[in-house]
Amino acid sequence: MTRGRFISLEGGEGVGKSTQAKALAAALRARGHAVVETREPGGSEGAEAIRRLLLEGSADRWTAGAEALLFAAARADHVAKTIRPALDAGSWVVTDRFLDSSLAYQGGAGGISIAQLRALHEVGSAGLLPDRTLLLALPAAEAARRAEARDRGGSDRIGGRDAAYHARVADGFATLAAAEPERFRVIDALGEADAVTARLIATLDDL
Amino acid sequence: MTRGRFISLEGGEGVGKSTQAKALAAALRARGHAVVETREPGGSEGAEAIRRLLLEGSADRWTAGAEALLFAAARADHVAKTIRPALDAGSWVVTDRFLDSSLAYQGGAGGISIAQLRALHEVGSAGLLPDRTLLLALPAAEAARRAEARDRGGSDRIGGRDAAYHARVADGFATLAAAEPERFRVIDALGEADAVTARLIATLDDL
Repeated sequence: MTRGRFISLEGGEGVGKSTQAKALAAALRARGHAVVETREPGGSEGAEAIRRLLLEGSADRWTAGAEALLFAAARADHVAKTIRPALDAGSWVVTDRFLDSSLAYQGGAGGISIAQLRALHEVGSAGLLPDRTLLLALPAAEAARRAEARDRGGSDRIGGRDAAYHARVADGFATLAAAEPERFRVIDALGEADAVTARLIATLDDL
Repeated sequence: MTRGRFISLEGGEGVGKSTQAKALAAALRARGHAVVETREPGGSEGAEAIRRLLLEGSADRWTAGAEALLFAAARADHVAKTIRPALDAGSWVVTDRFLDSSLAYQGGAGGISIAQLRALHEVGSAGLLPDRTLLLALPAAEAARRAEARDRGGSDRIGGRDAAYHARVADGFATLAAAEPERFRVIDALGEADAVTARLIATLDDL
């Protein structure tokens, strides 16, 4: 049995990750791959229970440290119960967010060091990294417009943080992508959804 | 305002920590101190929510890594919302379990390294340590007898682990106490509760 490939989609609020994760999974299935679609925080029973703790309640419900530990705990469960079993069974895994979201949200923008966050990932998930991480990127003005449109429909504890925070998140993602060019591909998320999906698929040819 | 003193009670299942924590708090109050009594996992609203995730469900609900991260997250909330505010207000804090329980249960007995567990505590709680840790110790045969008596009344995910695990926990505590003689006092937990409380109080004279 060939091990499956592990793909994460990353980016700020409103860049279209959920839509593209679904479309990418469909495109991979059309090419004959078994695909498990999943998302973070969550993606397994225990991680979904932790997700509720993370996304519900008041903005100051958790300290930055507690939040980072809870995300790492949820990821540990997601990896152990969903991701590794699927990869071992030969499936591809497409996840809407993974470690890099913690590095950008809790690290770059949230005040926990990148080294500490990687240490938590080592404890929880033995440092598992995606084979490819697709960073969906938008010009800042367009990202802000979409985030604002979403806010009118209600937002969660983290999505609801201010524009300066989300700008730091975007900077964090860009820095991570630049530091690991083998793993990351930065994808222009502007334009029709089908066109964006075609760009994503094209970056996976070598896998 | 003088900062309060931070006292933790530690030990395996059935050594009488809960009873002694209550008695110790009462004795300190009788000496004129304000005292906050608390316990882990839990001790604050967020930590109690995490406690339910940790102690309910099947024995294999969480991997060792996820469990260690959840304990550290609960402790981070406990420290931020209960312990530090009480100490800053001049109260003494008496907690039934703290970091050393993680080091003995998830570390020595559970397969996560002590260095990794201390790193999680640094992220979550800035490495806060008690001013004094009172380790209640029983001869192994007596500890086993008490644990067995408790088991008949039902046990939780962690208390219900096997005797070999609990023996490793006891060894872990002994090793921790030997490594930090300034912070730890090992207390003989055999005998009448009042006599044990008197032994505990006597170890706090220098604080």
